[in-house]
Amino acid sequence: MRVVVPFAAAAPKTRLGPALSAAERVEFSRVLLADVLGAIDDTDRQPPVTVLSTEPVDVDASVSVDDRPLSDAVNAVFEDRVAGGDEAVAVVMSDLALATPAALDRLFGADGDVVLAPGRGGGTNAVVSRHPGFRVDYHGASIRDHRRAAGAVGADLTEVDSYRLGIDVDEPEDLAEVLLHGRGAAPTWLRERGFELDVSGGRVSVARE
Amino acid sequence: MRVVVPFAAAAPKTRLGPALSAAERVEFSRVLLADVLGAIDDTDRQPPVTVLSTEPVDVDASVSVDDRPLSDAVNAVFEDRVAGGDEAVAVVMSDLALATPAALDRLFGADGDVVLAPGRGGGTNAVVSRHPGFRVDYHGASIRDHRRAAGAVGADLTEVDSYRLGIDVDEPEDLAEVLLHGRGAAPTWLRERGFELDVSGGRVSVARE
Repeated sequence: MRVVVPFAAAAPKTRLGPALSAAERVEFSRVLLADVLGAIDDTDRQPPVTVLSTEPVDVDASVSVDDRPLSDAVNAVFEDRVAGGDEAVAVVMSDLALATPAALDRLFGADGDVVLAPGRGGGTNAVVSRHPGFRVDYHGASIRDHRRAAGAVGADLTEVDSYRLGIDVDEPEDLAEVLLHGRGAAPTWLRERGFELDVSGGRVSVARE
Repeated sequence: MRVVVPFAAAAPKTRLGPALSAAERVEFSRVLLADVLGAIDDTDRQPPVTVLSTEPVDVDASVSVDDRPLSDAVNAVFEDRVAGGDEAVAVVMSDLALATPAALDRLFGADGDVVLAPGRGGGTNAVVSRHPGFRVDYHGASIRDHRRAAGAVGADLTEVDSYRLGIDVDEPEDLAEVLLHGRGAAPTWLRERGFELDVSGGRVSVARE
């Protein structure tokens, strides 16, 4: 198995605009990426990882630059896999701030031609494909579309039931999840910039000093 | 092990007000409860279940009425447990529309004096306690407080990493999760009332005909 971590290097995390400046969002997205890479590296399998980035980026992993839209870039990896052999390919999003080695080991160890980890709001936060015909389309309710796509090519489908893989960091309220559950550098980064939990409302959110 | 499912019978699910009328919220909350009871009944363990309700309610399970606030009512159950023996007690929220028997089996089968299943926004969606001193406080960022409470009484703590136990149904956007991942009567109930996925925005939501 090998792992691909897609990364949008330019103008990342725009929906965090109400909470972080543009420069902070660039820095935070790299902290999140490094946390995900660290968690993958701490799994039992320690699979080789490639960051699939829209532009060159300085990280502690090999980088493959592909500036096409996300789905096209990932599908090109799947097509290379078919041409190069039958090795399983995992695709893990770079903003899974809650991901732990244990959660990733469950993903990497799950049986199935196609393994999906659903993300909040209909997303697909991680995929493992061992099937030559499976392709991704991250637009819209991708988890629903990926279930259908797996069925359409006759692939056995497994879903990994993981909160830690299900929460990605897109919006300010997600920063509360990072503070509550994150174990990498991201929660420390947020606290150093004045973020703390705000429990005054209904659902817990964050406040900044 | 026995299971307690707290249920707020009067004026439930007020935060679903933008999506459902008051009468619909009452009906939907009972559909959610029945789904959770059905999932518990389909686990391997099939533990006995009591609905801990704020007022009498007609459901397919034994009902214990306690109109105190949630934390007080649950802690009274824990205290009864201590008086009555050392049986493990699980507390499972009634609005876990994504809960499956497999997810609940992971909860019920997890080792630890205290087992917690985190919920979105700092909540605690399910607890198993085998420790005589552990008490709950569902106010605020309860998952953080429950970690501390377990530590304060010297209880071994385990967290169950489950998306299906992590998503409760509080707000209109949560209805999309029910449509995408629910396996009980709740997604059918919503579809029959005109709800469908809306993929036109950033994160998937619901629209009603």
